[in-house]
Amino acid sequence: MQRQGEVKVAVLGVSGYAGMELARLLLHHPRLRKSPPLLLGRGEQPVPLTELHPHLAGNNGSASLAIEPFSWDLLKQRGVDLLFLATPHEQSRALAPEALARGLRVIDLSGAWRVENHAHRAVYNFHDNDEARAAEVQACSVYGLPELHRERIRGAKLVANPGCYSTSVILALKPLVAAGWVDVERGIVCDAKSGVSGAGKAPSPTTHFMYAADNLSAYAVFGHRHLGEMLEQLGVGEEHLIFTPHLLPIPRGILSTVYLTLREKKTAADVEACFRSFYTGSPLVRVFGSGGAAATAAGAPGHAHRASTLPQIQYSVRTNYCDVGFRLAQDGRRCIVVSCLDNLLKGAAGQAVENMNLMCGWEEAEGLV
Amino acid sequence: MQRQGEVKVAVLGVSGYAGMELARLLLHHPRLRKSPPLLLGRGEQPVPLTELHPHLAGNNGSASLAIEPFSWDLLKQRGVDLLFLATPHEQSRALAPEALARGLRVIDLSGAWRVENHAHRAVYNFHDNDEARAAEVQACSVYGLPELHRERIRGAKLVANPGCYSTSVILALKPLVAAGWVDVERGIVCDAKSGVSGAGKAPSPTTHFMYAADNLSAYAVFGHRHLGEMLEQLGVGEEHLIFTPHLLPIPRGILSTVYLTLREKKTAADVEACFRSFYTGSPLVRVFGSGGAAATAAGAPGHAHRASTLPQIQYSVRTNYCDVGFRLAQDGRRCIVVSCLDNLLKGAAGQAVENMNLMCGWEEAEGLV
Amino acid sequence: MQRQGEVKVAVLGVSGYAGMELARLLLHHPRLRKSPPLLLGRGEQPVPLTELHPHLAGNNGSASLAIEPFSWDLLKQRGVDLLFLATPHEQSRALAPEALARGLRVIDLSGAWRVENHAHRAVYNFHDNDEARAAEVQACSVYGLPELHRERIRGAKLVANPGCYSTSVILALKPLVAAGWVDVERGIVCDAKSGVSGAGKAPSPTTHFMYAADNLSAYAVFGHRHLGEMLEQLGVGEEHLIFTPHLLPIPRGILSTVYLTLREKKTAADVEACFRSFYTGSPLVRVFGSGGAAATAAGAPGHAHRASTLPQIQYSVRTNYCDVGFRLAQDGRRCIVVSCLDNLLKGAAGQAVENMNLMCGWEEAEGLV
Amino acid sequence: MQRQGEVKVAVLGVSGYAGMELARLLLHHPRLRKSPPLLLGRGEQPVPLTELHPHLAGNNGSASLAIEPFSWDLLKQRGVDLLFLATPHEQSRALAPEALARGLRVIDLSGAWRVENHAHRAVYNFHDNDEARAAEVQACSVYGLPELHRERIRGAKLVANPGCYSTSVILALKPLVAAGWVDVERGIVCDAKSGVSGAGKAPSPTTHFMYAADNLSAYAVFGHRHLGEMLEQLGVGEEHLIFTPHLLPIPRGILSTVYLTLREKKTAADVEACFRSFYTGSPLVRVFGSGGAAATAAGAPGHAHRASTLPQIQYSVRTNYCDVGFRLAQDGRRCIVVSCLDNLLKGAAGQAVENMNLMCGWEEAEGLV
Repeated sequence: MQRQGEVKVAVLGVSGYAGMELARLLLHHPRLRKSPPLLLGRGEQPVPLTELHPHLAGNNGSASLAIEPFSWDLLKQRGVDLLFLATPHEQSRALAPEALARGLRVIDLSGAWRVENHAHRAVYNFHDNDEARAAEVQACSVYGLPELHRERIRGAKLVANPGCYSTSVILALKPLVAAGWVDVERGIVCDAKSGVSGAGKAPSPTTHFMYAADNLSAYAVFGHRHLGEMLEQLGVGEEHLIFTPHLLPIPRGILSTVYLTLREKKTAADVEACFRSFYTGSPLVRVFGSGGAAATAAGAPGHAHRASTLPQIQYSVRTNYCDVGFRLAQDGRRCIVVSCLDNLLKGAAGQAVENMNLMCGWEEAEGLV
Repeated sequence: MQRQGEVKVAVLGVSGYAGMELARLLLHHPRLRKSPPLLLGRGEQPVPLTELHPHLAGNNGSASLAIEPFSWDLLKQRGVDLLFLATPHEQSRALAPEALARGLRVIDLSGAWRVENHAHRAVYNFHDNDEARAAEVQACSVYGLPELHRERIRGAKLVANPGCYSTSVILALKPLVAAGWVDVERGIVCDAKSGVSGAGKAPSPTTHFMYAADNLSAYAVFGHRHLGEMLEQLGVGEEHLIFTPHLLPIPRGILSTVYLTLREKKTAADVEACFRSFYTGSPLVRVFGSGGAAATAAGAPGHAHRASTLPQIQYSVRTNYCDVGFRLAQDGRRCIVVSCLDNLLKGAAGQAVENMNLMCGWEEAEGLV
Repeated sequence: MQRQGEVKVAVLGVSGYAGMELARLLLHHPRLRKSPPLLLGRGEQPVPLTELHPHLAGNNGSASLAIEPFSWDLLKQRGVDLLFLATPHEQSRALAPEALARGLRVIDLSGAWRVENHAHRAVYNFHDNDEARAAEVQACSVYGLPELHRERIRGAKLVANPGCYSTSVILALKPLVAAGWVDVERGIVCDAKSGVSGAGKAPSPTTHFMYAADNLSAYAVFGHRHLGEMLEQLGVGEEHLIFTPHLLPIPRGILSTVYLTLREKKTAADVEACFRSFYTGSPLVRVFGSGGAAATAAGAPGHAHRASTLPQIQYSVRTNYCDVGFRLAQDGRRCIVVSCLDNLLKGAAGQAVENMNLMCGWEEAEGLV
Repeated sequence: MQRQGEVKVAVLGVSGYAGMELARLLLHHPRLRKSPPLLLGRGEQPVPLTELHPHLAGNNGSASLAIEPFSWDLLKQRGVDLLFLATPHEQSRALAPEALARGLRVIDLSGAWRVENHAHRAVYNFHDNDEARAAEVQACSVYGLPELHRERIRGAKLVANPGCYSTSVILALKPLVAAGWVDVERGIVCDAKSGVSGAGKAPSPTTHFMYAADNLSAYAVFGHRHLGEMLEQLGVGEEHLIFTPHLLPIPRGILSTVYLTLREKKTAADVEACFRSFYTGSPLVRVFGSGGAAATAAGAPGHAHRASTLPQIQYSVRTNYCDVGFRLAQDGRRCIVVSCLDNLLKGAAGQAVENMNLMCGWEEAEGLV
């Protein structure tokens, strides 16, 4: 796939929110101008893209695009190199091995291949027809969080694109955990809040406007599916991390408020330096300062923010950034990290494009804002 | 039913939004303290009220109430005098004649019995098993808008509770139309906007939070079901009145902006006097002044509002008032009337309680705010 | 003030949100029908109530009410017994001693008299002209949380009505803390989320619709004013409790997610029993079960909720209830308590009415739903 | 300004919503990559762009940009060719003549130069120091609606960028009016609804979240400032067009519902053809079909939409499109046109970029989606 600019990509599952955003991003991607993405669905007839998503009409020739019925033959015929799976995890679990066997590279947006631990995988209730093959596939998959696994993603055959909540929690915690600064024994509390698009497109009592509007509710307490990913990527035991998601009355965005205790007393400057150092070279994380200037760690002189500003959902929504900021108590040990991202972009489709960029040898942030 | 304070009421269809509001109002109604309403559903087992509607827990002994399976025997056994039907129009069409035959008085919240004209009724696609009986029932039903039919409602056996949009449009127009002031030939435009609860409780693509939030859409253009009621009650032909509903990204409330031309030049004081005169004796309509004070027509000295104020959704939502205000162009002929109400209260359950009050010989506004 | 039904109350500060709700509740209060509340403001001229709050027009004769200019003479002339201060804390700090000296009983909705500890009071920056008198007043004030201080409130001269966040956090924690079950050393995390009315009526950049809508932001991290109240009422040190408020894009409601560790392993039934026992006799707290039925502790058989339900903002908003529910981790020690209330009702004006009821010897929940 | 790629632009007034969007668009504009826009404010000190607008951090080197204090010398020193005025109309009225005198081309986003008629201009209350010069400037200004004045804009020195409401109403009506099909004597009703960003960034009682959320209100009835523009561009008298704006509880977007009567009976196909013909060559208007496929008039085969779809705010918000659709009554004469756009994009900043593109000889839609 090193023929620069000649990559052919396909997306299966354009009807959902993540698939829709992925289609939108790929239709505008500068490296795919010559060869637009092949859009695929499980229906038996082609459906005009703009019938399903009227707001996409007019975007870079999308008018003439249709969502075509998926088949392996079609993929072969169109010369697809890279397949995005924006499918439910059961389907992704079945399709990915087949795609790899056919020589395709795969970016899977579901939870199918994200966790190694059997207990964590249990929440997905898989029934693999070929368990040995599944184990083999699992072993070669890479968790698609560029800030942690950039190098392995470049060469990966199968990238398991992270969950939206997981991305926000892992990016909030990993720098301090990796530095060995967190007193894990005292427990980490992750109180997360997400917009309704995270609940998917299927109409249900809890996605009804009358339920979600003017409301806030906690759900999946002590039992959310994304917990396994967080534990594995952070190297922390279940007894040490609590994750509580809440449903916000907004369309998009996640804010995670993460509470932890440092082993030793630190200054705000120490903590800020730890974050900046970890995210050096990561163009899509913006570190907010604590009393000083904020910057993306990627480049000097960085992006200045008001000293008093913590990340808010409005700053990162509809962008591909994960914003990270923090406050330290006067004791220098109790620390609150706040991270924000758009659940459909850095939390799903945008991160999938990042992974594509890495796999194709392009700039990590190409085609993303 | 003149045994004051001894009326027994039942509600069929408590699970929907209108039924839920009706249950809430009846549970607090001062005349029903000794004998709480019988709550009924179509299920086979009783369901605790607060399982379905947790927010109702604790309201006046509601804790111990259940929604019981509907049967005619149960109604008889509990001595029910008055039955509210908060059921789909097909069910109401079938149930009302039976209830009347069993000696019950009925307030039907559906559209089943609201219109006389065959063409208007056609939108409901009825299949009456006994057409003669249906015609007879229709003939004895009263359109339950107290401001127009107060006296007939008092003695009615079957009250057809008006639609939410219809209430807002008819109350905006009737005083000027009844005075013969409106140049109907020039056309009347009713541009109405409603919150999502008007679309009902069933999850669907258009009640999904992601569809309704941050959005506005027109629907049922030139073809909304409530049009027939409006035409019949106003005595205006279809060629003279346009009604366009829009879906607002809010839970509750309707605002209708009504455009008309007066036959002759009038002053704002003339128009205001026309409204006040018409609504004298109507405690649940608040007339807003045009440059002067507003008042409920019911009583002096009335409710003062700022001269510059037109009705807004926030003023009437969660109340049983219909607010009516207007502006007159400098030509003294073009007039814009704005009316607002809560679609679940004055537009549904609250108006049903008004009708009950009238039928039972109580104060029209009793148990309502 | 035992002359039942003859109490005369006054409210100073009707223009703000809490004052507006208080006016609304008092206008409907069954014990105040003969003698409506005296509504007061700091202006020099009377202002019709409905000019400021059009939605209140028509409520129980409110049409003819005006907000009158405050003066001690007017209070005396009208025979006021009980004065509600819905004023900024600086004003309350000055007015309460004067009111007490004049023989009035006072319910103050501000933070002026809530905390004893000097450090906690420092956040309010008081400048008392008569420090000795202020200390004396402070000493005789009662923290107006009926669930904790019911008896003392009955006889109090000055009630310091609790903060909205404080009420939600204290009611979530007090039963377990009072039982000695909480391992305070491991730290308690209170992650709270509030609607915009909590930020007050003054237009500002952060109450602008464009800032608050579709957004979520943490604020006052490690430094919110209500922290002192929580610590004093819970008897916990600052080093053991973290409180983080967030601004929700909704008008009303608070949800607090409280994380704690129990000293010893407990079952969900143990924890539920602890809550129910503590709230026996408290009609305005609803305890949600964990796998079983929920009930207000006040009465058998209680209000049944679905086993799977935790409190949500939609259940308690526009009521005077504080809902409390919880989940226990499989280890039987990590516990998450979720509490919800309406910040303007149980969090402000409604609780003030509760306190009035107690002070006047009436039922605690009279005039409240 | 034909030196392709070497144009230097400046924006005065970056702090407001339109200025913010303009900055965002210009920072991403492909023709301005070598020479980023000069951002200007009225303060005395430079302010980092991202301090004011944290969400813009990281966009194309914006991190190092500051909003610099405006001066004519600075404009000269930086070699500015084209000045965007995102200033209040009084300031624009004073600044534009000066800018023209200094040889700059100007795109003014305010209402200062949009209307010729004295009566229409009166609503702005100008006090021109040099009235003769003002009249001269007015005479050479072009109303910046590309769909009507594309050719004149290309050569213009001063472009008066249209109002947001005006754009939505004019684009809904012009094709039918220009064809002479509209029976103007029967009156045209424009019922428009806009998100809160249209009300500007200054905090005020009506932009407070508590006022706007869950609400809808009509305002400026018979007296909105944009009316003059509409009348002049449509060539219709004030007695024939009513325009009523409403404030929607959403951040962005306008939907206008326009009611008119055709002189003669037409079919839906006739009307659709009229729209398509008028917008041929206009890449940023999407015509929605009435029972058939929709398309941008710019290109075949167009963008297909579902037959039943009318424009909704969600389809055009955050794009630069104006969507136009319609419904015809069975009488073939009464017609409802619905148009939607994003008030900050096609209604303000995006249209300003369109005008820049035309003035610079670039593709009309360059840098816009």
